[in-house]
Amino acid sequence: MKRSDRLVAMTNYLVEHPMELVSLPFFSNLYDSAKSSISEDLAIVNKSFKQQGIGYLLSVSGAAGGVKYIPDYSIENSEAFVQELCDKLEDPSRLLPGGYLFMSDLLGEPATVRNIGRLFATVFSDKEIDVVVTVATKGIPLAYAVASFLNVPVVIVRRDPKVTEGSTVSINYVSGSSKKIQTMVLPKRSLNEGTKVCIIDDFMKAGGTINGIKELLAEFNAHVSGIGVLAEAEDDEEERVVDQYISLVQITNVDVKNKQIEVHKGNFFK
Amino acid sequence: MKRSDRLVAMTNYLVEHPMELVSLPFFSNLYDSAKSSISEDLAIVNKSFKQQGIGYLLSVSGAAGGVKYIPDYSIENSEAFVQELCDKLEDPSRLLPGGYLFMSDLLGEPATVRNIGRLFATVFSDKEIDVVVTVATKGIPLAYAVASFLNVPVVIVRRDPKVTEGSTVSINYVSGSSKKIQTMVLPKRSLNEGTKVCIIDDFMKAGGTINGIKELLAEFNAHVSGIGVLAEAEDDEEERVVDQYISLVQITNVDVKNKQIEVHKGNFFK
Repeated sequence: MKRSDRLVAMTNYLVEHPMELVSLPFFSNLYDSAKSSISEDLAIVNKSFKQQGIGYLLSVSGAAGGVKYIPDYSIENSEAFVQELCDKLEDPSRLLPGGYLFMSDLLGEPATVRNIGRLFATVFSDKEIDVVVTVATKGIPLAYAVASFLNVPVVIVRRDPKVTEGSTVSINYVSGSSKKIQTMVLPKRSLNEGTKVCIIDDFMKAGGTINGIKELLAEFNAHVSGIGVLAEAEDDEEERVVDQYISLVQITNVDVKNKQIEVHKGNFFK
Repeated sequence: MKRSDRLVAMTNYLVEHPMELVSLPFFSNLYDSAKSSISEDLAIVNKSFKQQGIGYLLSVSGAAGGVKYIPDYSIENSEAFVQELCDKLEDPSRLLPGGYLFMSDLLGEPATVRNIGRLFATVFSDKEIDVVVTVATKGIPLAYAVASFLNVPVVIVRRDPKVTEGSTVSINYVSGSSKKIQTMVLPKRSLNEGTKVCIIDDFMKAGGTINGIKELLAEFNAHVSGIGVLAEAEDDEEERVVDQYISLVQITNVDVKNKQIEVHKGNFFK
């Protein structure tokens, strides 16, 4: 295969298999080319990925070595994307009764969701995450986006058991802001002991939901290695029950009467 | 920019922007290269995409012309993928009480979900779909996968209204197999008049849920241009209330007593 053809095929292969160690002999066989040529190709791909700000190729040396595509969204790309998100979220027509914000349209755009996934993957790619956990339903697309860049499965916590899940483990927890007792369930066969998880959700206020997920995960002896929320709402710090998390945007000064919202960059940028 | 660098960058750009018309001057400016060179690059990319069986570049001529990446999964790739899926689903340990099948693990794998999306996008790419519609919760990841290849937004039908959705339109419908009355809601601002939608879901038995979605969509004067379900279960044809749909796999002969299931390729291959 010619270099030009190899570069297109290899780029595709690597972006479809992030965080996966690919050996040089694998590419060498697949494209029927010398290992030295493959090495040169990979250097070109690496340079281009870095220039585009979408990550880099990590070389692992030794007999079991190869390359791994690490998604790593550049700070310029990340800031531009999140700034645009903030501007869109500040639109007063998003304000709903009770000070809630309509975000379903943005969360319905695959490209937006994919970029959110890219940002969280950038933060969590060195945490050796085994599974991304979220709670139904708004967090689901975000969790899949993160998982696709970390190349790990998604496990979905539900509010109520479904027959198609088989036997489940459930907990009751107290929601952070409304102080109501709620239930969460997870299929028994969904997680192994000692799994390293990252929790992804769309929105956090006091953090009761995230805390509930953490309690449920404790039943599986899973280890929470990261927490990412798209938006955090301003709240009394005293009330917040979760302290270690990454947010992309912060919603402050929701003024329903005068139809105003302020949306700033989250602690991702700190 | 050198050809080798351009090929990597262009491949990335095109796979991230499927179904989107990109003009030659756009690439020419972005990569600071002559239009003739860009044309040659695109021919190389097109050849490689076809060889990999992941689609092709459609050339649109004229002043407003350019190229469009059309995801088109080859029949070989599709058959290999669906056969593997059938083999995995036939595992008797998936059988749950009531003859249901545990699929959450497979639907939790981003790569599997992405391939399912690719297959449906291959069928629906010429239908000028504006929006992918699904119902919470299992269909959500599949809908996003399809939508990411069709480059259109996702709209999620719910069983119960949520405050974060704003005002909603709701209908009551009769589920196909259990004959129970159920409710479905969609935010009022989620769909415009005359939108062309494709409906995606994970599972269909008699088709009551799909039919419910269709009724709800009729309230928005939306046009259903395609229906795709991952798995259809054998059922009396008389009872089936939906007739035009694409399925990837068919589940037959569920024998709970003897712990056996048969899973075949769906009507996608007919």
